[in-house]
Amino acid sequence: MNAIDTYLTENLEKYLQELERLCAQPSISARQEGIQECAALVKAAFEQRGMTAQIIPTAGSPVVVGRLAGRSPRTLLFYNHYDVQPPEPLELWTTPPFQPSRREGKLYARGVSDDKGELVARLAALDAVRHAHNGELPCGVVFVAEGEEEVASPNIAQFVQEHKELLHSHGAIWESGGVDTDGCPGTLLGYRGILYVELTVETMSRDAHSGQANILPNAAWRLLRALATLKGPDERILIPGFTEHAVPPTPQEIALLAELPDDDEVARRVYGIQAFVNNLSGLERRKALFNNTCNIAGFTAGYQGPGVKTVIPHVASAKVDFRLVPNQDPDDLLAKLRRHLDEQGFSDVRVEKLGSMFPSKTSPDDPLVQLAKRAGEQVYQKPYRMIPISGGSSPAYAFARPLGISVIDAGIGYWDNRVHAPDEHIRISDFLLGARHIAHILNQFAEA
Amino acid sequence: MNAIDTYLTENLEKYLQELERLCAQPSISARQEGIQECAALVKAAFEQRGMTAQIIPTAGSPVVVGRLAGRSPRTLLFYNHYDVQPPEPLELWTTPPFQPSRREGKLYARGVSDDKGELVARLAALDAVRHAHNGELPCGVVFVAEGEEEVASPNIAQFVQEHKELLHSHGAIWESGGVDTDGCPGTLLGYRGILYVELTVETMSRDAHSGQANILPNAAWRLLRALATLKGPDERILIPGFTEHAVPPTPQEIALLAELPDDDEVARRVYGIQAFVNNLSGLERRKALFNNTCNIAGFTAGYQGPGVKTVIPHVASAKVDFRLVPNQDPDDLLAKLRRHLDEQGFSDVRVEKLGSMFPSKTSPDDPLVQLAKRAGEQVYQKPYRMIPISGGSSPAYAFARPLGISVIDAGIGYWDNRVHAPDEHIRISDFLLGARHIAHILNQFAEA
Repeated sequence: MNAIDTYLTENLEKYLQELERLCAQPSISARQEGIQECAALVKAAFEQRGMTAQIIPTAGSPVVVGRLAGRSPRTLLFYNHYDVQPPEPLELWTTPPFQPSRREGKLYARGVSDDKGELVARLAALDAVRHAHNGELPCGVVFVAEGEEEVASPNIAQFVQEHKELLHSHGAIWESGGVDTDGCPGTLLGYRGILYVELTVETMSRDAHSGQANILPNAAWRLLRALATLKGPDERILIPGFTEHAVPPTPQEIALLAELPDDDEVARRVYGIQAFVNNLSGLERRKALFNNTCNIAGFTAGYQGPGVKTVIPHVASAKVDFRLVPNQDPDDLLAKLRRHLDEQGFSDVRVEKLGSMFPSKTSPDDPLVQLAKRAGEQVYQKPYRMIPISGGSSPAYAFARPLGISVIDAGIGYWDNRVHAPDEHIRISDFLLGARHIAHILNQFAEA
Repeated sequence: MNAIDTYLTENLEKYLQELERLCAQPSISARQEGIQECAALVKAAFEQRGMTAQIIPTAGSPVVVGRLAGRSPRTLLFYNHYDVQPPEPLELWTTPPFQPSRREGKLYARGVSDDKGELVARLAALDAVRHAHNGELPCGVVFVAEGEEEVASPNIAQFVQEHKELLHSHGAIWESGGVDTDGCPGTLLGYRGILYVELTVETMSRDAHSGQANILPNAAWRLLRALATLKGPDERILIPGFTEHAVPPTPQEIALLAELPDDDEVARRVYGIQAFVNNLSGLERRKALFNNTCNIAGFTAGYQGPGVKTVIPHVASAKVDFRLVPNQDPDDLLAKLRRHLDEQGFSDVRVEKLGSMFPSKTSPDDPLVQLAKRAGEQVYQKPYRMIPISGGSSPAYAFARPLGISVIDAGIGYWDNRVHAPDEHIRISDFLLGARHIAHILNQFAEA
């Protein structure tokens, strides 16, 4: 055991540099920037470790897969993604997003936490375990790095269906993980699903002078009226039948939520807010993760530059994402959204689906969960926490069901990584602890 | 008389080229692009005609003034502006906005109609009248070209107050004019006022992952809720006391509106719409110009690029313009807007005034109106139409009251100039007719 920890401590700088090289390569799936280049870097990193690696095309970004056999036929799958969120707004970054920069024990870059840091920590863990076993692995590994997670993984479900043999495994460690506000490790046991749509309305064939504003139809007003029918100010979704199939949290899940530490104050400070939506707090705030959301991720219409322009916009669009809870089906909700808009008189509002994912769940009693708990308590010397559901979404569902495996997470994150936002970063100490945790799970997976 | 018309017909090409040179110089007041350069070009055009010309600084863009004395002490003032609207969206222009281009009897460029073409047509008229009088002018002229009309003329009222002597005159021709859908000349007798504000709300100190969308406050939703309280779907403004001082149209004004031709079908075709707001048509549609508007000129929040980004926007803003009818005061309405938002629980929504103008009116019985009518019927050989109020706004009020003069318009426009929109243009035949109309007014103004 000590050989693993010693190796990782002594070689930390080497892995940070590997991570910096990976982060210096932009890989923005939303606009297909640097995707091929980054996939090639990931394949090289796999091959460098003796894995059999392939870049496998999909209808979108390619998936990079690397396999390496171990003494035991049992195989652990690692899911990561090499794509990142767009870095905008650029002016809010202290240092440029694709020039990794270290300050006060932290490493800053777009993707350094979500998700390139996770990937490199796992490669470091792999190296450490082999080092401790004279170059051998006690179990097999398969690394999967996709390139479209940040655009809702539109092709991963089909990819898994088509490559079940290649991905054959006995458990999976998901992309993220790390410590909570108390420094405790843990795992998510589930994810919400997502339905991401763009609503567009075009009221005229061109923009017009706003002197005719009570005569000619304004697309911004029209879209605003349509959006206002989707959700009440109390966050309740007003689309008929939307929550029809939703499964509420079980008593066991509520008990797990109740055991989690109260991080209200930290979250309020991080986001500079006085109160959460609907004045939620404590357990009630955590239980809100078992509710649906209807989020405006972007709204664009008319003149947005400096100064004034007196124009009636003829087109307006909004990006809207709905989070789904267990048992909801994104395509069912999409149909209900369309029907609702039609019934409300907004059949002129176009709805385009930009992405979707199903929700997913893992049992707290699963042997892999229990192994991660033992290893986590040993590495972090803190209680291990199980979070019944994440607010976010992931394509975990697309692996768990067809491969018949359990999915947990373990990694290098903390509560203020600023993923999807300017100044994304990791704490270097978290990187080391996360790599150790992964290494100990990998070291014992053959017997789990 | 014939000497004037002959001169303008024979020298048309020279003036079109002068106009093209002026349009090739961007002069976007919204972002202070090319303003100084364009002011210098206008001053040179004045001096070239022997005027005493000055570029006079203001708190914003400078005003260019040129004076030339005539045989009579009576002086006619021409108001124009050398600034233009921003050209975006650029991809909708057939040819680049600042590379003037002629196609099928039309001249395309940003500003070619609004308002550089008007200015050059007046300079051509001036040249023609002098040519017909052996270099003399029958009356004096003062040309005023401001550089902030497209950003609501924030400094022109104070400028006029401070330069009454320089602007001393006995009547004014305003910036625009031309023919209606029947090819008839006419004048506007009034303008609506305007209050242009930017509403901004900031719900957090940074953007957040949309997995927390029913927990963390979304600025786009917040602003949308605030905007929805301003106006009903029936266009009625919901701000208490907003219409308290508004003066409805007089029977004489309604009679003038009723005499105007029915251009509903043309306007529907131009904007590619099936119906006007509230199914207005005919006289009812024209009477709507005597109502207030509340227009969203722009709305911006969150991610607006291609693809998806799952983010909760922490800031959102909207540009909103209200059109005012006679007797309303923009600052009174601004205070009512602020009070309304506070009362509705939106004291977190910031309101910034970006510009404002008072409404204004001229009597249909004014001698200058009657002169323009006689000259118009002669040049166009069509009935002359008086439009009681424009949907748009203008700083005419800032000249009429302090200088004690009447203000009319006469110019080169037609119903499809696409001002403020892509592919702005003029018909070259309108340019010639408008210049002739102005020349005949100028020629007879000494005796009016």
